[in-house]
Amino acid sequence: MTDSPIVLVKPVLPALDKLGAALHEVLRSGVLTNDGSRVHAFEALLSARLGIADLAVCGSGTTAIQLACGALGLSGEVIVPAAAFPAVAQGVRRGSCTPVAVDAERTFLTLDPDAVAAAITPRTEGIVAVQTFGCPADVDALAAIARSAGIPLIFDAATCWGITYRDRPLLAYGDVSTLSLHAMKLTHSVEGGAVMSTVHPIADKVRRLRNFGIGAEGALPAGTNARMSELHAAVGAVVLGEADAEIVRRIQVREWYMDALRHTEWLRPVPFRPGAWPNVAAMAVRLRPDAPVDAPTLCDELKRDGVHARAYFTGRYRPRPIGTAGPTPVADELGKRIVCLPFWGGLTESDVMRVVDAIDRIGGGRCHESHALSLEYPG
Amino acid sequence: MTDSPIVLVKPVLPALDKLGAALHEVLRSGVLTNDGSRVHAFEALLSARLGIADLAVCGSGTTAIQLACGALGLSGEVIVPAAAFPAVAQGVRRGSCTPVAVDAERTFLTLDPDAVAAAITPRTEGIVAVQTFGCPADVDALAAIARSAGIPLIFDAATCWGITYRDRPLLAYGDVSTLSLHAMKLTHSVEGGAVMSTVHPIADKVRRLRNFGIGAEGALPAGTNARMSELHAAVGAVVLGEADAEIVRRIQVREWYMDALRHTEWLRPVPFRPGAWPNVAAMAVRLRPDAPVDAPTLCDELKRDGVHARAYFTGRYRPRPIGTAGPTPVADELGKRIVCLPFWGGLTESDVMRVVDAIDRIGGGRCHESHALSLEYPG
Repeated sequence: MTDSPIVLVKPVLPALDKLGAALHEVLRSGVLTNDGSRVHAFEALLSARLGIADLAVCGSGTTAIQLACGALGLSGEVIVPAAAFPAVAQGVRRGSCTPVAVDAERTFLTLDPDAVAAAITPRTEGIVAVQTFGCPADVDALAAIARSAGIPLIFDAATCWGITYRDRPLLAYGDVSTLSLHAMKLTHSVEGGAVMSTVHPIADKVRRLRNFGIGAEGALPAGTNARMSELHAAVGAVVLGEADAEIVRRIQVREWYMDALRHTEWLRPVPFRPGAWPNVAAMAVRLRPDAPVDAPTLCDELKRDGVHARAYFTGRYRPRPIGTAGPTPVADELGKRIVCLPFWGGLTESDVMRVVDAIDRIGGGRCHESHALSLEYPG
Repeated sequence: MTDSPIVLVKPVLPALDKLGAALHEVLRSGVLTNDGSRVHAFEALLSARLGIADLAVCGSGTTAIQLACGALGLSGEVIVPAAAFPAVAQGVRRGSCTPVAVDAERTFLTLDPDAVAAAITPRTEGIVAVQTFGCPADVDALAAIARSAGIPLIFDAATCWGITYRDRPLLAYGDVSTLSLHAMKLTHSVEGGAVMSTVHPIADKVRRLRNFGIGAEGALPAGTNARMSELHAAVGAVVLGEADAEIVRRIQVREWYMDALRHTEWLRPVPFRPGAWPNVAAMAVRLRPDAPVDAPTLCDELKRDGVHARAYFTGRYRPRPIGTAGPTPVADELGKRIVCLPFWGGLTESDVMRVVDAIDRIGGGRCHESHALSLEYPG
């Protein structure tokens, strides 16, 4: 056991000589950005791995959502989840649309289709649903609602690299899917994102928009600078070569967590929708309503023990102010109940034990009456 | 003389071993992004060089404008120049404001103060003026208008590193100034930008907005991911060490141009506002109304001779559609008349001669009657 902090995520970093050589090659070429050959090569690699030809990278997962809205020509209200990282509503806003927050469903934390159906109005131009912590949303129900309303369904699949659903990449669903390639994701390009589609030609539109929308008839209003640099693309290509190994490592880390947490009753892993596999984006847990602490308090107390966890649906991360289509009781409750524990492939079994020991100490110190098993760990 | 193309700008690139060592250091640290120590160090370096303490970097010059609007709390109409790179109007739009285009003044190509004064309405919340090609706008007149209207004046000084005006850095003017650190700028961080102010505390607001606006009371709606990565910041710090030498080289390149172009009557360098120095951002020239070709044609024909020039105010780069406060005859005309010639410190005297020879051949081939001097170069 060590006293060094256990961070939430550590970036996947291949051997430094390999990365260094890739970066040196970019510097030697003198082409540092502006849609150079490394960006195109990286796009081709991502496309080949996913089997999705129509794919363009961009500067971030946030700009991926923004450019998806722009490429689809949206400009009105867009439904977003009330329980989501702020990037979702902000990407919609930056895409010149107005986000309207809709409640989550309880089990998988994804957008509640009934609430979406009730929220559709003539002003609704699209739906951005999140594959929350890598768990598929109710894609069939959402697709039916979008089809019936005649509006596009965008999936923010920011964390979904490597996850399949019904034997297809989770990134292949929806009218458009967006990916984050931020350093904290399973595969990354330091900062970055991608937009892709299996049904609409979207990549060339995104390529134009990420470069100020410049073209023969003028610069499109949805344009911006959302390019990926050649340095970042070069890192992305090398890191991608590590992604499969990282998936294997994360499957193991999750098994350690599942085993170590099996007796902790006040805190349970969030279930993964059947048909989806593997569950490698995050280690999300839910605190029971009668848990001895709420999510923000658990994070604070874990931090004192050198364990970095995060309550993404709580105050700090909620877009404010934001319009909602009605009350969002589930999302409001999730803010108090959902915590992401440290989760990355480099964690050892003893790291995981240290996290779970700390959780049990925090719980056991408060509720040794109701949770006898926690007493094994002195508070 | 060589046949290899003369490009518009080549990025300043310090010795590869120095850059490589800086990048290796970032990789070794394992911290690749998210406001790490290299971003803070780079901000401190830029601040020290400018003498402007209140400065924050961000992902691009476009997001610098966007975050400046957000940090100032703007949400309504913002005046922008009709003759400007599309990033200006797009940064304003991405900042949830509505750009209203106003005409340029003829001599320096900057925003026309009279047209601005006439365009102010109760809906006007701010002015984004551009220091066009490094030439100061009419800062006194614009400041008086902004003050009288009670709205902030933002200067997009994207290209203005190293330029002083009345013995102060040009980046020190206005309520807020924004800088681009894109690879094609005099000093750069591959992709990047900065927001600074000598009158308002803005840097901490920008730091919050670039990281999704996350904070105790929630995520601000103007937030986004507009961070600079540690890799880019590390490059920026090394390149900054080359900036003074690049300025000296560009002063020499401009002298070669001024000498070589002295007899070309149909195309003259755009003047620089007195009191500003040195003129090192761009080599902008103006074609006379009776010139043998217009700006887009000149660029096309130069390209056939292996010379890359650019007509930034022409169709491809103009934001469309965009609201205007009235007719913009000067800006419309500038689209046909203004060309930026290749301009960077690595150009040799013979490169410059090759560019000017090509210009004179294009002119001379068409108008040897009216421009006798062009006849020295066979068309």
